[in-house]
Amino acid sequence: MAIRVGIIGATGYTALETLLLLLRHPEAEVTVATSRGEAGQPIAAVHPILAGRMSLTVDEYDPAKVAAACDVVMCCLPHGASAETVRQLIEAGVRVIDFSADFRLSSVAEYSRHYGIDHPWPERVGKTVYGLPEWYADQIAAADLVANPGCYPTSAILPLGPLLADGLIRPDDIIIDAKSGVSGAGRTPKLNTLYCEAAESIAAYAVGNHRHQPEIVDLLRRFSGATTDVVFTPHLVPMDRGILSTIYVKPTDPARIDELESVFHVWQQHYGNGHFVRAVQHLPATKHVAHTNHVQMTVRRSGDRWVLIVAIDNLIKGASGAAVQNMNVMFGRDPRLGLS
Amino acid sequence: MAIRVGIIGATGYTALETLLLLLRHPEAEVTVATSRGEAGQPIAAVHPILAGRMSLTVDEYDPAKVAAACDVVMCCLPHGASAETVRQLIEAGVRVIDFSADFRLSSVAEYSRHYGIDHPWPERVGKTVYGLPEWYADQIAAADLVANPGCYPTSAILPLGPLLADGLIRPDDIIIDAKSGVSGAGRTPKLNTLYCEAAESIAAYAVGNHRHQPEIVDLLRRFSGATTDVVFTPHLVPMDRGILSTIYVKPTDPARIDELESVFHVWQQHYGNGHFVRAVQHLPATKHVAHTNHVQMTVRRSGDRWVLIVAIDNLIKGASGAAVQNMNVMFGRDPRLGLS
Amino acid sequence: MAIRVGIIGATGYTALETLLLLLRHPEAEVTVATSRGEAGQPIAAVHPILAGRMSLTVDEYDPAKVAAACDVVMCCLPHGASAETVRQLIEAGVRVIDFSADFRLSSVAEYSRHYGIDHPWPERVGKTVYGLPEWYADQIAAADLVANPGCYPTSAILPLGPLLADGLIRPDDIIIDAKSGVSGAGRTPKLNTLYCEAAESIAAYAVGNHRHQPEIVDLLRRFSGATTDVVFTPHLVPMDRGILSTIYVKPTDPARIDELESVFHVWQQHYGNGHFVRAVQHLPATKHVAHTNHVQMTVRRSGDRWVLIVAIDNLIKGASGAAVQNMNVMFGRDPRLGLS
Amino acid sequence: MAIRVGIIGATGYTALETLLLLLRHPEAEVTVATSRGEAGQPIAAVHPILAGRMSLTVDEYDPAKVAAACDVVMCCLPHGASAETVRQLIEAGVRVIDFSADFRLSSVAEYSRHYGIDHPWPERVGKTVYGLPEWYADQIAAADLVANPGCYPTSAILPLGPLLADGLIRPDDIIIDAKSGVSGAGRTPKLNTLYCEAAESIAAYAVGNHRHQPEIVDLLRRFSGATTDVVFTPHLVPMDRGILSTIYVKPTDPARIDELESVFHVWQQHYGNGHFVRAVQHLPATKHVAHTNHVQMTVRRSGDRWVLIVAIDNLIKGASGAAVQNMNVMFGRDPRLGLS
Repeated sequence: MAIRVGIIGATGYTALETLLLLLRHPEAEVTVATSRGEAGQPIAAVHPILAGRMSLTVDEYDPAKVAAACDVVMCCLPHGASAETVRQLIEAGVRVIDFSADFRLSSVAEYSRHYGIDHPWPERVGKTVYGLPEWYADQIAAADLVANPGCYPTSAILPLGPLLADGLIRPDDIIIDAKSGVSGAGRTPKLNTLYCEAAESIAAYAVGNHRHQPEIVDLLRRFSGATTDVVFTPHLVPMDRGILSTIYVKPTDPARIDELESVFHVWQQHYGNGHFVRAVQHLPATKHVAHTNHVQMTVRRSGDRWVLIVAIDNLIKGASGAAVQNMNVMFGRDPRLGLS
Repeated sequence: MAIRVGIIGATGYTALETLLLLLRHPEAEVTVATSRGEAGQPIAAVHPILAGRMSLTVDEYDPAKVAAACDVVMCCLPHGASAETVRQLIEAGVRVIDFSADFRLSSVAEYSRHYGIDHPWPERVGKTVYGLPEWYADQIAAADLVANPGCYPTSAILPLGPLLADGLIRPDDIIIDAKSGVSGAGRTPKLNTLYCEAAESIAAYAVGNHRHQPEIVDLLRRFSGATTDVVFTPHLVPMDRGILSTIYVKPTDPARIDELESVFHVWQQHYGNGHFVRAVQHLPATKHVAHTNHVQMTVRRSGDRWVLIVAIDNLIKGASGAAVQNMNVMFGRDPRLGLS
Repeated sequence: MAIRVGIIGATGYTALETLLLLLRHPEAEVTVATSRGEAGQPIAAVHPILAGRMSLTVDEYDPAKVAAACDVVMCCLPHGASAETVRQLIEAGVRVIDFSADFRLSSVAEYSRHYGIDHPWPERVGKTVYGLPEWYADQIAAADLVANPGCYPTSAILPLGPLLADGLIRPDDIIIDAKSGVSGAGRTPKLNTLYCEAAESIAAYAVGNHRHQPEIVDLLRRFSGATTDVVFTPHLVPMDRGILSTIYVKPTDPARIDELESVFHVWQQHYGNGHFVRAVQHLPATKHVAHTNHVQMTVRRSGDRWVLIVAIDNLIKGASGAAVQNMNVMFGRDPRLGLS
Repeated sequence: MAIRVGIIGATGYTALETLLLLLRHPEAEVTVATSRGEAGQPIAAVHPILAGRMSLTVDEYDPAKVAAACDVVMCCLPHGASAETVRQLIEAGVRVIDFSADFRLSSVAEYSRHYGIDHPWPERVGKTVYGLPEWYADQIAAADLVANPGCYPTSAILPLGPLLADGLIRPDDIIIDAKSGVSGAGRTPKLNTLYCEAAESIAAYAVGNHRHQPEIVDLLRRFSGATTDVVFTPHLVPMDRGILSTIYVKPTDPARIDELESVFHVWQQHYGNGHFVRAVQHLPATKHVAHTNHVQMTVRRSGDRWVLIVAIDNLIKGASGAAVQNMNVMFGRDPRLGLS
């Protein structure tokens, strides 16, 4: 029987991408889509790419009705708003995959410090699985609530995690220079994401204070078991989708600087049997993973550094594809279903 | 009297940009443009944007004729080919601004190592002024030959130079993550610069072995007086023009990590009376300098690093604008002429 | 059992798109991919997006070996070259879907006139089904050879065909102003498809003499049964994929100019039960059909004209998706398999 | 003495483009820039590209103060709002170039019908010169108020005007298929001009009811002296700037369909001594006129039609460049000043 899926906050780009992935999923069916602003409209009026392909009408959000109609809910709301909705849905008895950052961090204090608000459901902070099936599949399979990872963190944790876990690189000197397509900034009209502002231009933003920095640090500490810090600089690139992270690290043993194969070896050990993460010899471009759930990563030497280069599609492996992958794991399906 | 300018290798993007700048220059006139492949054609057949605006016919290259018709020649040939042509022109008695890398490095050995060829005119290597008027205006004014700087080096040397000269940052831990528009790769058709390959994608290239890395190191050593190394990673960004360099440095005195104003102070001291280099408070985007000869740069703190962020137009301040600025200096004009 | 598919000419964009579609197809398997220039390489070396997803090695073309390994061959060669290869494959006993224009026209004379060469296999011209399953499904199902439609013709014939067949519009005053993404120009490096030439620019090309014009006319005559002519102007638009055709027609009965519902009615009659062609009320953008096999079309009145506006993805419904749809029909599968 | 220029509504794209052009103008100086929302800020805070290049502070609008500080005012407000402001400025004794549509049409009734409001200053409608210096230079030179032309109308009137005036083409069968960059839609954040909506997509909009249609018709009637109608379809193209209009016309005498030189001849007669309008043999791309005040246009035959193809930069010749050109004419300067 098909997994019945609900989408809360159906108007944004990650919601749309999830809907498109689920259209192709052979064992899932979207039964509910809600949005405050668009209730009553056909989903194709909100997303014209769905014209003739999905006949759903957008609903008002009602936790009891959503829970009754769904086996799992994808909650695509912004942080803060999401936690409260997630709590209602969990209490109504439905499993939830939360796209927001509300349940990703280990500590309520860190959350409040970086998000500037009291957490609406502090009891679940630090007790919710981080939805990275490459590492936490067992917990995800059993979870009622999964914190779907951030897009930048996905691009950083996947390559760095195993290298830290195996002690191959130093945890105290990591620089992540990340470049994202504009869809990461969402679908709400703002000056800096207008075509005429974003096209033909690249800029850094939130230097030294982006909210994904503590998320990356939190996760990397789980791998390294040590105090880890990262310098993280996000950039806005004139493209719709994709993240390329260029990560500068140092081998724990400087004498091994030329042993790039040791990096490949660790990656192979951890991801070799996985479905979506690939160490490659070529320099990956975001185009090489666009519209897929795949990750391509490689390593080069430059001076006394290893340069890790990682490409993902921010909307898919960085959001909606990860959610579908998590859903597949939660419901005992092949993780690849619906994800080519 | 107008400065009579010749353009050698008139078909590429930097040649075109130079022609466009000179069209607006009130005291310069293009008298000759040569190109092997296009000789005999009107310049507007090569560059349709010049239709009705410039009536020049493209010529075969003949050093004597060029020298007779010009006060200065912009040589827009690739490295190797350029040095030999430059020698002929200098020997024919005309001043030259060389767009290639042939006379930028201090050492013939370094040149051969990185460019893989014997230098055609080794006598002038190390004895040619590096065309950065913000630092070497006096030598440029007197020069018969100016080595026009590379685009990436310009974006790195301008912010780093004074900080190294004043000892504010460490010379041994500099990471330059640079992002360039596609025009930097030239106008010769190649797979990776096709629209369908470059658009909607970002990738690193030449990681650890780009030829601008030794050029940057060579120049930075002149400022620091110390053994300096840099990690340099160039990226191809889906935009026509622009370079954004994100540069990770460490203050010499870690206790000063929060004194960002010391960086601004040094920049102000060195560039305060200049024409094109600006320290700004906002995070510069390449769009903020596109189609201009201006440089915008700023600094932020992230962890134990200062992050310098610098934007230039690779075709203008990174090539043709710098050449026109050099020409103005060589001929005693206001450096801003023709450059808005 | 899976349909075994071969790809001849595997390096181009339509070949890649076909490979990507077949990766998702539940009942097809790519068994052979050939390319003269790339034989011996893994397919992922030619198309890095396939890294870890397809393990095929590119082969030299050998008709007997291809025929033995395949149930159907997608021939992605240019016109002229294709016809000869198609003949060999058909004679070797395998069914073929030809992406070139070689078997699309009704007349050898027309072919020679527009393509400037003698047809390599004239016997099959006029005797090969035009691969538009919306109209010719029965013939396609039985065919050994299918002429896969051109991208521009698809965007013109689908909306115009039924209106001409029903006599709703005049066949003698049709203007097609078509706009295509750059991928339509292929993957061979050329000046005009470089990023820096194509980006941030739009231009018309081949005005009055594009080879798709006779193809459109040929097909429209089959629908109208009358002498039909069209004015056809293709444009190159700075986007990877997509065609938008804006088509200016006149109602046969000028008094019906405001009866736009009659157009929708005819479309509904012909495509109402189909899978991919949709009349929509909104103004379709190419983004609304990008990465899908769908067609969106609508009509507006302007002055004494009906303006038909049609959007397709040139690489999918305009090429590879149509081919997969044809394959599904040829092998008795649901036409939607592998096409979301 | 420099012309003192004021800019009303300084935050939009046409205002910025005007500021950039005036920066290069040797005989003009911006003395005032006003904006309701941004008063008190340095102009570079609104437009970071002006950092270090223009030290103006944005003011509140005060007609008396503006009039005292300026010889001419560029009014960059939206229609409706503009007319009232223009009236105040004219009454305060300063000359005005109005970027809005408020004074372009000949008739108040037409204005009300298309703009849906009562005209705030009906006395000047039909009595204000249309700011096309190629045709109305004498009136512009003497005018206190100039109605700066719309961008689409400029691209249509310049090629069509002389052909209609000379009776070479029929006035009753003109189809204008126009394609514009996104900057034409302004700088106010809206969903359809977000990067992720506009990039990699093309769509028609306002089919059959765009407000530039009556403006085009109004002007063309002045040239043809006959009842003229046009079918006009604007499209949004994924580029920052540029308009390409593809115009389908019929020769008055069908027998002359192959006499393309007659079109060139008429254009040459009317524009031959002009500064910015060029008939060219190549197919113009918007890139060929981007960042310039130039117009490139050509003609081809297709079937029984002449296809006119015209490229302008919508922000320059379609707005700010035309305004500067008008200003030059109003103040007796060379029309080319500041416009390369």
